[in-house]
Amino acid sequence: MLLGAVEGGGTWFRAAVGHADGTIQDSTRMATTAPMQTLGAVADFLAAHPITAVGIGCFGPLSLSTTSADYGKITTTPKAGWSGVDVRGFLAQRLKVPVAIQTDVTAAAIGEHWLGAGQGAESLAYLTIGTGIGGGFLVKGQPVTGRLHPEMGHLPARRQPDDAFPGLCPFHGDCLEGMVSGPALAARWGVPGEQLPAGHPAWDLSARLLADGLTTMLAVIAPDRLILGGGVGQNPALWGPLHTHLAVAVSSYWPRLCITDWLLRPDLGEQSALLGALLMARGARRGME
Amino acid sequence: MLLGAVEGGGTWFRAAVGHADGTIQDSTRMATTAPMQTLGAVADFLAAHPITAVGIGCFGPLSLSTTSADYGKITTTPKAGWSGVDVRGFLAQRLKVPVAIQTDVTAAAIGEHWLGAGQGAESLAYLTIGTGIGGGFLVKGQPVTGRLHPEMGHLPARRQPDDAFPGLCPFHGDCLEGMVSGPALAARWGVPGEQLPAGHPAWDLSARLLADGLTTMLAVIAPDRLILGGGVGQNPALWGPLHTHLAVAVSSYWPRLCITDWLLRPDLGEQSALLGALLMARGARRGME
Repeated sequence: MLLGAVEGGGTWFRAAVGHADGTIQDSTRMATTAPMQTLGAVADFLAAHPITAVGIGCFGPLSLSTTSADYGKITTTPKAGWSGVDVRGFLAQRLKVPVAIQTDVTAAAIGEHWLGAGQGAESLAYLTIGTGIGGGFLVKGQPVTGRLHPEMGHLPARRQPDDAFPGLCPFHGDCLEGMVSGPALAARWGVPGEQLPAGHPAWDLSARLLADGLTTMLAVIAPDRLILGGGVGQNPALWGPLHTHLAVAVSSYWPRLCITDWLLRPDLGEQSALLGALLMARGARRGME
Repeated sequence: MLLGAVEGGGTWFRAAVGHADGTIQDSTRMATTAPMQTLGAVADFLAAHPITAVGIGCFGPLSLSTTSADYGKITTTPKAGWSGVDVRGFLAQRLKVPVAIQTDVTAAAIGEHWLGAGQGAESLAYLTIGTGIGGGFLVKGQPVTGRLHPEMGHLPARRQPDDAFPGLCPFHGDCLEGMVSGPALAARWGVPGEQLPAGHPAWDLSARLLADGLTTMLAVIAPDRLILGGGVGQNPALWGPLHTHLAVAVSSYWPRLCITDWLLRPDLGEQSALLGALLMARGARRGME
């Protein structure tokens, strides 16, 4: 039985059809433009295949309470035209199949849990650091969402002494996203993160801030495993200093934590979220059976 | 069917027998002295009743991975003589019934979820602020524990500008516990927290630090509800400033959060953990059926 998957990002939407074992039969992508145009193109692609359910991993913030009147809608986003858009409802109405929706990072966590680096983890956190910072948290493979979904990028970050950089988050200034996202790196150092060589002080400072953020996640949720993805998150220049600072941060209170078992890179590369959405489609179909 | 409940604290152990609806038939408490003496007294009390299972909420850190060789043991604690003590194993062997164990704060969360202020919450965080700070996190009433259990008190706290107080945590100095626990209040202001009057600057500063910590929990796990207990946590002098600072902290990014619906005091007073342990006993018995 064929399943549909959608990954909705701020720049591109990707759509695919495939099977629950992670095999993709056909896929496409379209630029993220006006909502009805973009979602219409996604629906056209999916409608051309005999799919039985759809999973969506979409940028947020999303309303994910199934009992809420605005379930499946984007709430308030700075992205012009997309606030209030009913992503799930639009595709459900066009395609007449069960549709599941989660944030893009939660979808990535689901993909990694079932098919990638998160296999066998009882609880799994997935953190991506790129243009922004986002996170998802699964327990026994199921997303944890309460009143809202996690927004791990916006956790309050501790400053390093004498650091006067104000941070870039339009909401909080110096939350984690405001301090170590790609745009924050570029604003602080004057060049894009990918042009900063290994050994540049940017990486040591980012690693210190991030080690603190990961320690916070350890204190609050103690995930069995943590996967760190995204362009900044997977930069090899970051990982050496990150291991160093994380080892110090956890040594006194979590001495039994083996960092190299705990902190992993994604296994599925750019496919984590799309494959996670495919698996969500399987869940949505089962929910209807 | 009668169930046994144990709440293990650093100063007292409490034991009770009762029913899954929260009715207590008999209870006792004993000072926390040497492990075998204390646990022996607990076992003697419970053995005098025809109980079918036991739930334990105990101070930690605990090993809670059911596949671990040291499952149910206290790991490393500063409390003399208690490191490595097999709390669960001791009672299971003495009483020959199924025994469930969680941290004391997770037990409190379970009590509040089923019988108290957490009823109906899809995900629930319980934070207690007293001699220390601890937290538990439930999803659909089930404790979230991964590689370790949460240690929410030890999340990195952001300092207020110009605050030179080093913090009291022996591991981290100025983690949340090191900055706003009862002993931290006493060390900073020279008098015990309960003697600090409403309006004292201690409460405003504590509220600022705590609002930051609660924002962190919101970002990382977005619990449906958060219950704040403990002697410091329930001090009425804290709540006014806490609401004020939390409102500011969440206004920009979580504007739909109604703080008075989200942040609650415990309903079960001093009984949260003991009643939670009673409910855990019910779960342990079911697990054997």
